[in-house]
Amino acid sequence: MRIAIDAMGGDHAPDEIVLGAVDAAKENKQLNLVLFGDENRIRPLIDEVPNIEVVHTDEVITSDDEPVRAVKRKKNASMVLMANEVKEGKADACISAGNTGALMSAGLFVVGRIKGIDRPALSPTLPTVDGKGFLLMDVGANVEAKPQHLIQYGIMGAIYAEKVRGIENPRIGLLNVGTEDGKGNELTKKAFEGLKEAPINFVGNVEARDLLEGVADVVVTDGFTGNVALKTVEGTALTMFSMIKETFMSNFKTKLAAGMVKNDLRKLKNKLDYSEYGGAGLFGLAAPVIKAHGSSNRRAFYNAIKQASHMVEKDVCAKITETVKEWNESKEES
Amino acid sequence: MRIAIDAMGGDHAPDEIVLGAVDAAKENKQLNLVLFGDENRIRPLIDEVPNIEVVHTDEVITSDDEPVRAVKRKKNASMVLMANEVKEGKADACISAGNTGALMSAGLFVVGRIKGIDRPALSPTLPTVDGKGFLLMDVGANVEAKPQHLIQYGIMGAIYAEKVRGIENPRIGLLNVGTEDGKGNELTKKAFEGLKEAPINFVGNVEARDLLEGVADVVVTDGFTGNVALKTVEGTALTMFSMIKETFMSNFKTKLAAGMVKNDLRKLKNKLDYSEYGGAGLFGLAAPVIKAHGSSNRRAFYNAIKQASHMVEKDVCAKITETVKEWNESKEES
Repeated sequence: MRIAIDAMGGDHAPDEIVLGAVDAAKENKQLNLVLFGDENRIRPLIDEVPNIEVVHTDEVITSDDEPVRAVKRKKNASMVLMANEVKEGKADACISAGNTGALMSAGLFVVGRIKGIDRPALSPTLPTVDGKGFLLMDVGANVEAKPQHLIQYGIMGAIYAEKVRGIENPRIGLLNVGTEDGKGNELTKKAFEGLKEAPINFVGNVEARDLLEGVADVVVTDGFTGNVALKTVEGTALTMFSMIKETFMSNFKTKLAAGMVKNDLRKLKNKLDYSEYGGAGLFGLAAPVIKAHGSSNRRAFYNAIKQASHMVEKDVCAKITETVKEWNESKEES
Repeated sequence: MRIAIDAMGGDHAPDEIVLGAVDAAKENKQLNLVLFGDENRIRPLIDEVPNIEVVHTDEVITSDDEPVRAVKRKKNASMVLMANEVKEGKADACISAGNTGALMSAGLFVVGRIKGIDRPALSPTLPTVDGKGFLLMDVGANVEAKPQHLIQYGIMGAIYAEKVRGIENPRIGLLNVGTEDGKGNELTKKAFEGLKEAPINFVGNVEARDLLEGVADVVVTDGFTGNVALKTVEGTALTMFSMIKETFMSNFKTKLAAGMVKNDLRKLKNKLDYSEYGGAGLFGLAAPVIKAHGSSNRRAFYNAIKQASHMVEKDVCAKITETVKEWNESKEES
């Protein structure tokens, strides 16, 4: 298996990206990694790992670049070369922690879509109290979603949850303003009807209040709402942690208490750290394309590589292609 | 001033509703409250408060009732009688902790809209770290919003924030998937242009991540997205508090620490308790209509009454009517 990596994307590139790659490559000798980026900065970090290859390039897409334009013009950017490697069949999957919009463009225009999937979905796995996590589809690849897009997300999410995350008969929920049937706006009302017919275990509407309690294994929604939900979880959690920290630092007694629960609170923080589940998958593309979090450290990037390798191993994209084809044919027949 | 109250709505009705009303009536002798509901259950809780009147009715709209039908058919329900009191000009405002959908229907069909406002917005004030809070408009009165609705929300929110919450030149933000101009879906792109022209201090796009940090005093969004954002904040905060509690109860040392920071953590919890800011206003109606939280206790309901009385005192609805009229005229002229 060969995975292409944009070594220059993310807040801690290339160091943490390369170190994460080294960890993954050392652990699994069957894994061949090809890193795109500034060889002078990458090479010293690798130190004789036979299954890592480096392809030098000076060009980089930054977070300030306008996504579509950057992918079209910066032909030699590390991210574009990475995507090309997949397009040309030289790599089975690719990963970047760089500009999210640019990666979506590179995915769509370079790697290409699966036939039968209208729009890719950017889908991170978010934490739940039971530690199992849930897949949120989509968080912004497609802010103008139509009902059939949400149904396609459900089908893709079910396959990923089962194959990669090992969840038997995964529960697919539709994010809505109430749990009763018939709730919501025009989009969710129509998507609800379609999801009922799809070859998945659709559990109906779910509310944002119950997401972290693990109300479903896959939650589908339009990219605008999903983006707001994701960032609201992040914002609320960060605000609360900073308020808790402030509370603990307020006087001598609380400082003493803080020392006593420090390790336990760190465990809690880790439980909410969703980089443990890997990066966000761009589902619906011809090969696995993973968006690692922009603030990825060595460990987070290592997890993203493991996630990509699992997707290749389990042949997720082929399974999606096949299922969507069958489903479309069955609809035409009926 | 006279305020009509649905004494039978909410999880703790009528007891906590009536006790909250008693507290408000005792504090402010200028305030006349009229309570609608089961007199046998209400009267014993009042105990000689001259400025509280009770109007008996047996009929109640429950949380299981279908909103629009319930308001049309249950003519003698406490909530409908309450709204009628406002319609007939006998009360200046009304408050219920009951069925949210039914209250929106009663507001729309009984109290009626302000001319120039197309759709009312259900708008709670959410907590921020600095304790100032922000108004989120709308959280579900209108799940199929158009750009002009969001612009009208901005105008109404600015008036409320200034008059009732005492915020000078309040900052109005548009909830979006990024802070840059031109971000978002068709709705937010168009609303952005309109908000720039409106007679408000529009500060542009805001992200869900920054809501609790107090990025704006009023945040406008469609009812679907707002509902998801609100419930995501609630769900994330509740999940975190329960995880923190579990962490503290895990062993002897953490239990000891818990005892030491108990009061400080309670303060933190209170800081995040948005019932301190009153209930959710239904903006755009001819008179103040307040939806108190379903789980309202005495204190929360007392706060909702104070909020309603401030809105009457500051003549918020008249100010909205006047501003919208002027604004529509200026648009016609240009």
